[in-house]
Amino acid sequence: MDLFSLLRRRRATRAFRPGRTVTDAELAALFAAAIESPSSFNLQHWRFVVVRDPARLQRLAELAWGQRQVATASAVVIVFGHLKAHRDAPAIYADAPEALRERVVPLISGFYQGNPQLQRDEAIRSGSLAAMTFMLAAEAHGLATCPMIGFDPEGVSALAGADELHVPVMMICLGEAAGDAPPRAHRFPLSHVVRLETLDGPGLSVPEA
Amino acid sequence: MDLFSLLRRRRATRAFRPGRTVTDAELAALFAAAIESPSSFNLQHWRFVVVRDPARLQRLAELAWGQRQVATASAVVIVFGHLKAHRDAPAIYADAPEALRERVVPLISGFYQGNPQLQRDEAIRSGSLAAMTFMLAAEAHGLATCPMIGFDPEGVSALAGADELHVPVMMICLGEAAGDAPPRAHRFPLSHVVRLETLDGPGLSVPEA
Repeated sequence: MDLFSLLRRRRATRAFRPGRTVTDAELAALFAAAIESPSSFNLQHWRFVVVRDPARLQRLAELAWGQRQVATASAVVIVFGHLKAHRDAPAIYADAPEALRERVVPLISGFYQGNPQLQRDEAIRSGSLAAMTFMLAAEAHGLATCPMIGFDPEGVSALAGADELHVPVMMICLGEAAGDAPPRAHRFPLSHVVRLETLDGPGLSVPEA
Repeated sequence: MDLFSLLRRRRATRAFRPGRTVTDAELAALFAAAIESPSSFNLQHWRFVVVRDPARLQRLAELAWGQRQVATASAVVIVFGHLKAHRDAPAIYADAPEALRERVVPLISGFYQGNPQLQRDEAIRSGSLAAMTFMLAAEAHGLATCPMIGFDPEGVSALAGADELHVPVMMICLGEAAGDAPPRAHRFPLSHVVRLETLDGPGLSVPEA
């Protein structure tokens, strides 16, 4: 199925088919896709924790305002962003050409060190890029998703064993959709969100594809 | 072309074919795809400014450490996140069922008001989700991209006419790739970035797809 069909079909899914398990092999295919996403300086800030145990899913649901899709998902993927991903630069560039490595590794250090807001921004940015790819890959494998930010971040971090170097980016509920897809939700027209040259300039007014 | 082929083919592209223009119709197709992305409470925090004028691209390149892909791209899309997107909730839910609207609109207000860090996180998160979709849609249309964060955010905001309610999420250079694709860059193995149950638990060790 092509990208545009996947996009049209995707819904934030709140009802999952009970009894459907998601296997390690399925997860591997989805994560192999997700990590093809780009990240700043290729630092790959993303880290993923997979929760499938029903009792732990129930606990996660309690940490997420009791939202029903959490406890009934086949799996919940907690996406984290690594706040100190810049420390991985020497490993990531170990096999790069020497001239590139010698230039980029100190550049990365200087860019991130002492800038906790940028570190947080980057963790969320890269984690979100990978999350989007993961959701599309799931759709391509016949699995539905529900991205979520409505949860207790400290509680979720504790459940996932995450230390203070990892910020929760979002949770993604995963499973097979039960029932019909709800209608497509509201979207602003392109002319409202796309501007030519400046934010207060004219909007993109071509009829939407 | 299917999603997985697009992912395998995508590269952060630094050499674009000169003289290739990107039309309004092409942009509309890419943005129509991008805005199919999900966002928290469907607030659609994303805003996009398209720069195509060569003199303005040159100015953008100067604001981006002189990186060559900026001045030679057919277009640069500056992705912004709207920090006060929660104020759009009444408009977004205007046509929703009354019971949902009455519940969700005050919930959104309470969730975001007085929490500037969350507002920033959300702007970056939603902007990044849309950015990932945009890049894949570009690839599907035979266009290459280069996502970038190495630029002067204040300078870029000024050039785009963005006020303090809009945070730059990233720039995306867009054009037709010139020359061969570089080899795929480093990726951590899945066992390093995917953990089962907890972050210090076992990694996902299934052979990568």
